Order: sequence, then C-alpha cells, then structure tokens
Amino acid sequence: MTRVITVERAVDAVPKMEAERFRQMMARRGTLVVNLLSSPGSGKTSLLEATAKLWAGTHRMGVLVGDIATDRDAQRLAPWMPVIQLTTGGACHLGLPLVQQGWERLESETLEFLFIENVGNLVCPSSHDLGEHLRVVMLATTEGDDKPAKYPKAFRTSAAMVISKTDLLPYVPFSQAAAEADARLIRPDLEVFALSALHGIGMAEWSEFLLRQRQLRFGPDVASESA
Amino acid sequence: MTRVITVERAVDAVPKMEAERFRQMMARRGTLVVNLLSSPGSGKTSLLEATAKLWAGTHRMGVLVGDIATDRDAQRLAPWMPVIQLTTGGACHLGLPLVQQGWERLESETLEFLFIENVGNLVCPSSHDLGEHLRVVMLATTEGDDKPAKYPKAFRTSAAMVISKTDLLPYVPFSQAAAEADARLIRPDLEVFALSALHGIGMAEWSEFLLRQRQLRFGPDVASESA
Repeated sequence: MTRVITVERAVDAVPKMEAERFRQMMARRGTLVVNLLSSPGSGKTSLLEATAKLWAGTHRMGVLVGDIATDRDAQRLAPWMPVIQLTTGGACHLGLPLVQQGWERLESETLEFLFIENVGNLVCPSSHDLGEHLRVVMLATTEGDDKPAKYPKAFRTSAAMVISKTDLLPYVPFSQAAAEADARLIRPDLEVFALSALHGIGMAEWSEFLLRQRQLRFGPDVASESA
Repeated sequence: MTRVITVERAVDAVPKMEAERFRQMMARRGTLVVNLLSSPGSGKTSLLEATAKLWAGTHRMGVLVGDIATDRDAQRLAPWMPVIQLTTGGACHLGLPLVQQGWERLESETLEFLFIENVGNLVCPSSHDLGEHLRVVMLATTEGDDKPAKYPKAFRTSAAMVISKTDLLPYVPFSQAAAEADARLIRPDLEVFALSALHGIGMAEWSEFLLRQRQLRFGPDVASESA
C-alpha cells in the first residue's frame, strides 16, 4: 500500500510544476488557455464551432481537442480554426504532456485563446491541471439539473458553467434555477451562461466573458502586442 | 515503471476472481445482474423507474445505484423498488467490493433482476467487471450519434445498446442509423433498443429482451424456483 502511494506522489509532482510552467509561458505569449470539461455530447465542439464563427476575422483562437478515439471533432472544427486532435487511446482525461505536444504541433504563436476540449467525462478531467488559466464546465439541459450536486469536483474547480442546449428546455425536465443553486453551493463565485450554440442564442455574453477574462489576466494591451 | 505495473497486476487479480464468484453466486439464486453504463444524464435512472413501473406486481427487481456524491437517484427510485445508493466519494466508476456491500444491505434474496446503475461515465466503468451477467450501454439521442466511435470500449464490452430520449429526435441532430452502424463495427452482435422512458415508448421490447436474457442463461424454470 505504502509503495503505491509513494509512486503516485513521485509521478504527480512533475506535472504540477510543468503545468505551472506551461501556464506562465502561455501568459507571456498573451494566449488565454481555456480547459473545457463536460459529459460526452454536452456540446463542447458545437460551442467552439459557434465561438469561432462569431470571432471570424476579429479574434484568433486555436483548439486542442481530446478524445479516446477518432479525429471526428478535429474534422468538424478544422474549417474554422487551427486544430489538433489529441487521442488518448483509452485514457479518461487529457494529460499535460499530450497538451504540450499538441500545442507544439499547432504552430500558432499568436493566438489570443487556446481552447482545450477535454475528453467527454465529468469525473476524471476535473483532477488534472493542464496548465489552463480558466476552467469551464458545460452542462446540457438534456442531462438534468442534478449534475452539479452529483459530480461536484468538476463544478468546484471551474470558474464558469455553461448551460448548453437551452433550445431544448421546452421538452426536457430541467430547472436552470436548481442547477445554478446546486452549483453555487459548491462554488459560490461561479459565473453562469445559458446558451444554445446550435441556434446562436446567448453567444454574445459567452464571448464577452472570454474577452474580459483575458483582459483581466493579461491587461488591456496584450491583444495588440501579440498581434 | 516496472514497479507500478507489478502493483497493478497484483491488485487486479483478486477482483477478477471475486467478480466471477459473485456472478456464479447470483446465477445460483436466479438473479440476472445487469450493469448499466452511460454518460451522466443519459437516462439510466429514468429507464429503471419506467422498467419498475412496467413490471410492478409481475417481476422482482432491485437496484444498486452508483454516484460520486448524493443519494438523489436512490430517493427517486425508492418508491418503486428496493434500492441502495453506492457513493464512490470521487471514484469514476463502481468497484466490486462496493457492489457486494450494497447487495448485502439490499437484503433481497428473491430478485429476478439486480440492476447496477454505474457512475455516469462512458469511459472508466467499461474497464471494470462488477460480476454482471449482462452489460448494457445507454446513449441519449441528445448526445450525438458519434459516441460509439469515440468511446468504443463501452460499446465493445456491452451486449446491448439502449438509444434513449427518442422523443427528442425531432429537435436534435442524431442519426440512429449512423449510431447503430458505428456501434456494430465495434460489436457486430450488439442488440439495439430505441426508447423514450419518459414517454413510455419502446419499453415492451426492452422488457422482453431482459426476460429473454434471463431465461437464456438460467433456463425457463428459474423464475418459478426462485419465487
């Protein structure tokens, strides 16, 4: 038993330092790194697609997209932004080494935003620091409003929650008030956005949030410096 | 590196034997154990609720319901069937020891079916044998038809796929044919059921499948023997 714990500690110390180094390196470049977590099928890829279309010609974003298998998400996103597919080959979350390799292959030095679309999983990714500046958890209205209470760590470690697929609200039993109340019990300062990426509803508030977060962290002049 | 692998092997051997022992013990009792896997919010609890209502007074089922935190699912199911909540306290899947403890606390010797509602996660639970006779994976239409290809192990290790929330098909981009084709590339003999537990659509086929599976494994006389 002691042996296992010792091995885990030794292995964990390196990623923690490495994640901090990656975060600082990306900050120096003026690139805000956003780690996007959710269940499978909550709409991470659709949100990134809608964000890219909204920002076309105005803000520069790139995506590292994680999956167990296939490069389908990268194929979906490739027409709209620089994207690298990260395939974990079975692992239930992305790890920093894969993110660093993806970033190097992306070859985009001047991004304002680097989104990391994590493996669809509301559990494992919440325990892994990928060197992000901002963690965002998504919850689709179709998943039910009880998920913040049932999967607390993903919500506790996130700065914002995106409630997605609001166009389906008339057809599903989902109380936004209940989901928000449960989530804020876990994380009182959680910012909440409700949107439908498919129908373009609520996208302006989401976009403003991201731009504000970048300015708060890097200051108002970073965008022009990195351009 | 070698040390870690050695530890994992030593730890894994015991659960494998234990799972087989649990499976055989439950077979002797005439109880078919069904391990239900899916993403968070695909509708596992709703399907079990609808199954219990359909079977009320005719077939005896019990449920062990797994979650990271809270006993909300057990509260939902308790009016309809014997149920025990298993709370993993952070772990991304159920393990056999917790299932065995839950079964002992359930104190139902004469069940025809024991359902294990796993933690909502399409990745980790697929690697853990809980001593079940039948593994079933659920996929909600709202999650997208690309999930079998992106999360292959859950589909490869399951005997059946339940496509849930078919009442939402008019509002979401989901091709049942595409989901089935991808899933059968991974598991050619996969049985597929499409249903809406909320609206009671497709429940008869699902029920017949379960009863048939139990009879195939335990023979036609088991039901009356265990009664």
